[in-house]
Amino acid sequence: MSEPYQRVALIGLGLIASSIAYAVRRAKLPATIVGTDIDPEVRAAVAELGFCDAVTERADEAVDGADLVMLCTPVGAIEDVMAEIAPILAPGATVTDVGSVKRSVIASVLQHLPAGVDFIAGHPLAGTEQSGPRAGFAELFDRRFCILTPVEGASSDDAVARLRSFWQSLGAMVEEMDPDHHDLVLAVTSHTPHLIAYTMVGVADDLRRVTNSEVIKYSAAGFRDFTRIAASDPTMWRDVFLTNRDATLEILGRFTEELFALRRAIRTGDGALLSDYFSRTRAIRRGIIEAGQDTADADFGRRAKTEETG
Amino acid sequence: MSEPYQRVALIGLGLIASSIAYAVRRAKLPATIVGTDIDPEVRAAVAELGFCDAVTERADEAVDGADLVMLCTPVGAIEDVMAEIAPILAPGATVTDVGSVKRSVIASVLQHLPAGVDFIAGHPLAGTEQSGPRAGFAELFDRRFCILTPVEGASSDDAVARLRSFWQSLGAMVEEMDPDHHDLVLAVTSHTPHLIAYTMVGVADDLRRVTNSEVIKYSAAGFRDFTRIAASDPTMWRDVFLTNRDATLEILGRFTEELFALRRAIRTGDGALLSDYFSRTRAIRRGIIEAGQDTADADFGRRAKTEETG
Repeated sequence: MSEPYQRVALIGLGLIASSIAYAVRRAKLPATIVGTDIDPEVRAAVAELGFCDAVTERADEAVDGADLVMLCTPVGAIEDVMAEIAPILAPGATVTDVGSVKRSVIASVLQHLPAGVDFIAGHPLAGTEQSGPRAGFAELFDRRFCILTPVEGASSDDAVARLRSFWQSLGAMVEEMDPDHHDLVLAVTSHTPHLIAYTMVGVADDLRRVTNSEVIKYSAAGFRDFTRIAASDPTMWRDVFLTNRDATLEILGRFTEELFALRRAIRTGDGALLSDYFSRTRAIRRGIIEAGQDTADADFGRRAKTEETG
Repeated sequence: MSEPYQRVALIGLGLIASSIAYAVRRAKLPATIVGTDIDPEVRAAVAELGFCDAVTERADEAVDGADLVMLCTPVGAIEDVMAEIAPILAPGATVTDVGSVKRSVIASVLQHLPAGVDFIAGHPLAGTEQSGPRAGFAELFDRRFCILTPVEGASSDDAVARLRSFWQSLGAMVEEMDPDHHDLVLAVTSHTPHLIAYTMVGVADDLRRVTNSEVIKYSAAGFRDFTRIAASDPTMWRDVFLTNRDATLEILGRFTEELFALRRAIRTGDGALLSDYFSRTRAIRRGIIEAGQDTADADFGRRAKTEETG
């Protein structure tokens, strides 16, 4: 068993940080939790909600004496935060983050990481369309993957094991991965799908002949999933696309290529191409169900089933 | 109250037809149900499942004496079916369909519709990723919209009222709409989103560096919704895109235009454009929740919430 952290600093008190705090309480970990956020309204809300033992205005105050520092801001703010807290970080402390992109976060943090401090980038694959400290709940990470992407020279094996143990106590399943590979996998499974969903919802919004009320009324049809995806936090997603630019543009290039082939098949009436394509993608879904990755849908089978329609 | 139908012919015994049959039984309607399908394996399955009073090999046999004929084949097969059954259709009978596209179905049916027979095109907005007669269940249409698109001269008001009453007894909420408008609304809310989901899942499947097992393992992230959408019946969807070609290509053109603008913003690092765009689409989701169109998600809030991630 790794030694539990004694003092956890949460920087950026949104959905993820608040859920971490609630999950730490649920797990009855001994840690004191100190939180900080640049937004005074967020700090006031957190003080009212009470999930932190203390809330500070400045990040360096929150970090003072912490053996675990969790960077929970949007990815784009991480470099500034690191510059601010670096002088206060104590040897033996571990710094981690929860961002959706890993390569650029690692580059930002390593520029400022003091000697004797371990850094392990991390990404819990959990979230909701809600954001802010009032959206957090202790169960957010239960049976969700948390991917750690440690890099040579930035962390000891012991520090990785300790962080792994921490996430497991919050309910997560921990995996390790190369940061570049993480960014590519997430570009496929999350970032590009989100961009596409945002785009499709934007198209619907623009289309004057299809009034909002109709789009809303008949949105049971697949589009509803897109609207949920496209309701996520705008600042977080802006930073994801700006910092995972290369992988997103690569996947988007492939997507566009395939979409144009299908568009051409529709225009020319090539039914064989369309039905071959649609048969192939069906197999992937079967893999997901067989792998047990869609147990939520299985639990509420009928409800999930009735969401599809032509 | 409209007079209930005495004899219902179901042509094409897949998910929708089987669910209609089960819902007719549940509603204790007096109708005899006769089914037909060109596939002998489907006919054998239906005989075993027992939801039809009789199963015939030929469509014209099933239609003989029916006062309601429901065309439940893929949209591309409707014209051939109409040519076959037209000589058998009795004056006073009503013909309807359940296809996802209305303008082309209406054109196909009207070519063959005998005098004295009413035709009202219809589209129940319900379905699952499953297909075939074993996938049907009586609750499929409960609280789902069924859109009727009657056209001048093809049906009497009484016939429309009678069909409306029939669908209501199966649990559906019935609306009337112009067929062209239906096809455009569905191109936005269903057809284009499905094409995009199929494309994205196809891209993931092609990408060798991201193995299938990883795509499956980490698919909790938005992509999972896409795989469910992309698991729908290939033949049905082929026909949807071939027959709703103009509206789909129009919406796809707008989608591509917007996607290229976002792609350019990612490439050039235009964060302001991205976060403005993402803030705007968020409002549409709020409209859906306020309109009560996402009560299923509300019921299982926590489950739905944990599906999003970066």
